[in-house]
Order: sequence, then structure tokens, then C-alpha cells
Amino acid sequence: MLYEISEKVIKLENEGKKIIKFNLGDPDQPTPTEIIEAAYEAMKKGKTKYSSSAGEKKLRETLADIHGVSADNVVITAGSKWAIFAAMYLLLKKGENIIIPTPHWTAYDLTAKSLEAEIKFLRTELESGWRIDLGKLETLIDDKTRLIILNNPSNPTSKVIDGKTVREIVRIADAHGITILSDEVYADISFVKTKSISEFSNDHVIVKSFSKTFVMTGWRIGYIIANKEFVEKIVKLNQITLTNVPVFIQEGALKALELRHEIIQKIREEYRRRAESACRILSKTDLKFLKPEAPFYLFPKLEGLDSEKFAFDLLDKGVAIAPGTAFGNYREHFRLALTVPDDEVELGLKIISEALK
Amino acid sequence: MLYEISEKVIKLENEGKKIIKFNLGDPDQPTPTEIIEAAYEAMKKGKTKYSSSAGEKKLRETLADIHGVSADNVVITAGSKWAIFAAMYLLLKKGENIIIPTPHWTAYDLTAKSLEAEIKFLRTELESGWRIDLGKLETLIDDKTRLIILNNPSNPTSKVIDGKTVREIVRIADAHGITILSDEVYADISFVKTKSISEFSNDHVIVKSFSKTFVMTGWRIGYIIANKEFVEKIVKLNQITLTNVPVFIQEGALKALELRHEIIQKIREEYRRRAESACRILSKTDLKFLKPEAPFYLFPKLEGLDSEKFAFDLLDKGVAIAPGTAFGNYREHFRLALTVPDDEVELGLKIISEALK
Repeated sequence: MLYEISEKVIKLENEGKKIIKFNLGDPDQPTPTEIIEAAYEAMKKGKTKYSSSAGEKKLRETLADIHGVSADNVVITAGSKWAIFAAMYLLLKKGENIIIPTPHWTAYDLTAKSLEAEIKFLRTELESGWRIDLGKLETLIDDKTRLIILNNPSNPTSKVIDGKTVREIVRIADAHGITILSDEVYADISFVKTKSISEFSNDHVIVKSFSKTFVMTGWRIGYIIANKEFVEKIVKLNQITLTNVPVFIQEGALKALELRHEIIQKIREEYRRRAESACRILSKTDLKFLKPEAPFYLFPKLEGLDSEKFAFDLLDKGVAIAPGTAFGNYREHFRLALTVPDDEVELGLKIISEALK
Repeated sequence: MLYEISEKVIKLENEGKKIIKFNLGDPDQPTPTEIIEAAYEAMKKGKTKYSSSAGEKKLRETLADIHGVSADNVVITAGSKWAIFAAMYLLLKKGENIIIPTPHWTAYDLTAKSLEAEIKFLRTELESGWRIDLGKLETLIDDKTRLIILNNPSNPTSKVIDGKTVREIVRIADAHGITILSDEVYADISFVKTKSISEFSNDHVIVKSFSKTFVMTGWRIGYIIANKEFVEKIVKLNQITLTNVPVFIQEGALKALELRHEIIQKIREEYRRRAESACRILSKTDLKFLKPEAPFYLFPKLEGLDSEKFAFDLLDKGVAIAPGTAFGNYREHFRLALTVPDDEVELGLKIISEALK
């Protein structure tokens, strides 16, 4: 449903329509100029050839330093989505199962389905602060369970899982010999401190991305942090699929890391401000929601709402949102990505408020 | 073995060693400046966002025009390797089988193995001009056969399959309801006219790439031509894996197509000249080989040679080659990619000639 809306938006825009795009987690800001210039310099220097399927040495070493691991624990991937597909492809066989807390990012279950794995959803609710019920998690585990997905902070709820819960989930996974696939792509720009699973164990798979942190969504670069053996498996899969992420893109990413403190601070403050402004506007409606703890999303609820119908109605009014059904059985919810300029946030939320009356 | 050598070469180069790299089909020429500038302009215009998983409309339309198909028959992929993985992932299930003529490009069988498919090799020999035996092909087919690989022109032999044989293979595949995965990435720059399977049928899957034709190996962009239904399946797979090839890379590719006549002519003539020069040098050795009909490879044979040992010995002498075992059961062969500057071709082949004495 998310992809249908997004392809429809592209079509409408190709027809010349103006759409306020709350539907995609794709920041409106440009990629910082320094990153573009670094990529361009690299192209001109001939960094347009095949290279290592593990990623460039310098980039892996820099990331290793940042995360306090060895370069052997880092492999560069074509975005976090590829990282997630690759990890699931290697860890999850037909007939095995994966536990996915809901609401969840769209690609997790589509990927598991594509691999013919069974999916066990672990429902969380707005009313209980999107808290993961550890007892319920344990009852879902059986001898075919291979993976637990964590998405911290969460897309679509922008909720950060508290450290104690993260620690308990690691304990449960370890007790059952299950791998956690921890998607932490919003962690570096979250508004509240986010505990990585790496603080509790090094035996799991962490997925990171340059997309959100450095406004590099369309560059398609992310990475995996895992133990050396698993990194080597990903490298072998990269060898028969992607060869390597373009080296000039990796050079752009390296420049991003050099400038990370200032870029992150700027991005975080901008989205914190937008989140506060959106909360102010939406608090005047009947929508229920929690204040976001990270960029970019709000996942409000209105009792009785059919968010799929609502999404298509809004598209006619020039506003794109993602219906809650794209993230699990959450028809009364919808997701707003605050990844449009401030004036569009205001106008778009006004149109939504009107439409809800 | 191919990837082991290539990662070892990267390691030696990182240590400051100078290696003549006959091991990789990665042209030594720079990507044409116009392509780099087009990509840079696109980056500066903000074409750094998520986009369609099918590829940019303009690029698909231009490719469709060139190939005489509809834009619905074209999907942009992250290189031809991803295209091949994606096609196999969608068409080949565990326990089914695929027929691969040998010698073959390394990734075909690694991908099939990764998918737990059975591989049936169809051996061809230098002595019979690498001719595909159609009778032998038919005897390999059973009710679990889903795919036949064609690689025309071939990597590693640089042999172009004659039109009549292509037509017969299409007839056999159609009679048995088997899909041909036709890897035609060298066809646009081949020295002799190459017949695409598209001249005989539109029901199969053609894989193309910008890598070799436009010196864009490290850009990771290729495409698939197939029927609309299959293209839609690839788009759905792109949605859960890559999202899209970076739009600025697609803009570079569009510029490449604009300039295609001059770029192709230049590339083709350069490699024809190199092939002739290499044949002259190697004809003074005991190596048996056929004159290449396309860039970039020679696949010579020396009776009794252990090409794996030979490859590692040569690496100590500063020359990298790919042992024949990387392409099937061809231990007496090795592959030379003439993708190094003219003076290195000469020096490298001299070192090889000496080592063979």
C-alpha cells in the first residue's frame, strides 16, 4: 500500500500536480554540498571502477572507530533496505519464522514473505505507549524462530525503546539462540538517548544507514555491524549481487562522517522543531498520538477511521500520507512523515485537520 | 577463486604494490567526462532522493526506443549482476535446475548455488570453437529445468554465438516452457554482429549493462528487458531491496545513451586493436586460443597447465590473471581481461610468455 501510494505520487507529479508528501521518509533538505563535492571529486579521480564487496577500507575503519568495533565487523551495503534483505536472506529459510513487533516498517514483512518465512507479529498499542510486552514475546518463540526484528527508534511511531527493554530482549534472544536484526537507522538523530543492542551483546546484527542522518536517501548507502563470520557471509552475497556500492558514493559518505557532529545537530534540531509544531497543530484535532522521540514520523489514531480511504481522499486534495494498514493491522492510524518544508507542514496539516472534521 | 584473487589484488595495492590487472573485466579508461558532469549536475539539482523502483521514466523510454520495446518492458537494476540475481531469485526455486553452458561467468553458478538450485553444466570446448551442442542441451532438460543461461558474447571466451544457434536455443526453450536468461552485456561493443534473443522471441529475460559499453563498471547500473509481468515482479523485488538506483547515476546513464554512437565506436576500436596486439604476442607462445569476437577477454589453454598455481605464481611477478577453474572445469585455461593500458598489455603478456617457458 505504501509503495502503491508512492508510485501514484510519482505519476501525479510527472503529470505536473503539486503534492505535499507526508508519505515518504525522504527529507526535503538537500544533501549537504560538501558530500556532493566529495563524490564529484572522487568521480573525477577515477573512483568509478569495481572495488571491494566489503566496502572501502577507510570508510569501514572510520565506522568501526565510531561504533567501537573492528573494521572486520563492518560491511557497506546499498542502503539499509538491502542490508535487511541480505541478513534475512542469509538467516531465514522457508518454513522458519521471524518475530516482528507492530506497527512495523513495510519492508520487513514483505521481505520475510518473499523468502516464504512465517511471520509472527507482536502487537503494540498507542494506548500502552507502544511498549513491547516481553511475556508475549516469549510466548511467540518456538523452535523455528530464527530472527527478532527491533526497530529502534521505530518507524512509524518514532518511539525509542527504553534501555531496560532492549536489554531484556537481548537476554531472551540469547537464551533461545535467536538473532536480533536491529534496525537503528534513526538512532543517531533521535531526540532522546537511544540504546543500541551493541551495548548489551555483539552477537546480533545491527543495520545502519546514511540516508536519514545525512540526508542521503537516494544515494543508497548503509552498513551492517555484526560478528566477523556474518560480515563475511554478507560480503560473499555482495559479490554475487551488487559487487560494491559505487566508490564515489562511499567517498561522499566518508565526507559525511567527517562532518557528522554539525550535520547531525542541524538535522536533529530541525526535526525536533517540526515535530513540536506538528504536535501543536494536531492537538487541536480529535487525533490521539504520542510526542515523537525521534525523526520523522507521527502515527496518530482516530477511532473509526478508514485510513486507506482517507489516504486516497487526501491525495485528491494534494496531500499524501501513508495509511496505517501499511504498517500492520492499524487501519485507524496513519503515518505522517514530517519531511516537507515548514510551510508545507503547516498547510498539509491544515488540510488534514479540515478533512477530519 | 576469481573473487579471492580480486580481493588479494586490492590488498596488495593497498600495500603499495603495482599489479598489472588482467584479472578483472574493468576497463582502464576513465568514464567519459560528459557522463560524470551529467551525474554531478543531477546531484546539484537535488536528484539525491528516493525514486521509482522501476527506474526513471525518461531512461526507460530511451532504452525502450533503442531496443524497439515499450518502457513497460524495461526495468533499471543496480548492475547486470543484480539483474541476474533478481531474475534467478524470482524464477528458480530450491530443487529446480538451471542449465549453464561452460566456460561460464563466475556469478551464475554461485547465485544458483546460493538459491539451492541444481546446476547442469553444458560443456563447450576450445577445440570445437566453443560451439553449443544442441542435442546435448536437449538431453539435459528435465521437468525441473526452469532456466537456461546464455551469455552472448561470452565471458570468458569472447565468442559470439551464431544466429542460427541462438534461434534453435530459443526454439528448444519455448518447446519445453523454459525461460532463457540472456546476458548480453558485451553485445553492443562486440566486433562481430551479435544476434539478441529478442530477434526471435519476447518471452525471455535479457540482461544488459552500462558497465562495459560506457566504461561505467563502478556505477552499478544495468537493466532487464522482459515481458511486462516479469518486469513488474522485478520492480516489486527492487522495492524491498534497493528502492532505486541513485537518480544521479541514472542521469549519467541517460547522457551515455545520448553519446552512445561515438562512445561505442571508440571503445570497440580500442579493444579490437588490443585484442589483435595480444593475439600477435601470444601466437609466439605454446598457448592455444581463438581470436576474440568481442571485448575484453582471451581464454587461452596450455595442455597440462595448473592455472590456479599459475595465477598465484604470476601474482608474485606483479601480474593478475583469472584461473580457468573460476569458469568451470577448465584448469588448463586462464582468462586475460585486456582492460589495462597498451603498455601494460605488452609488459604483462611478456611476463606471462616468460613464465610459460
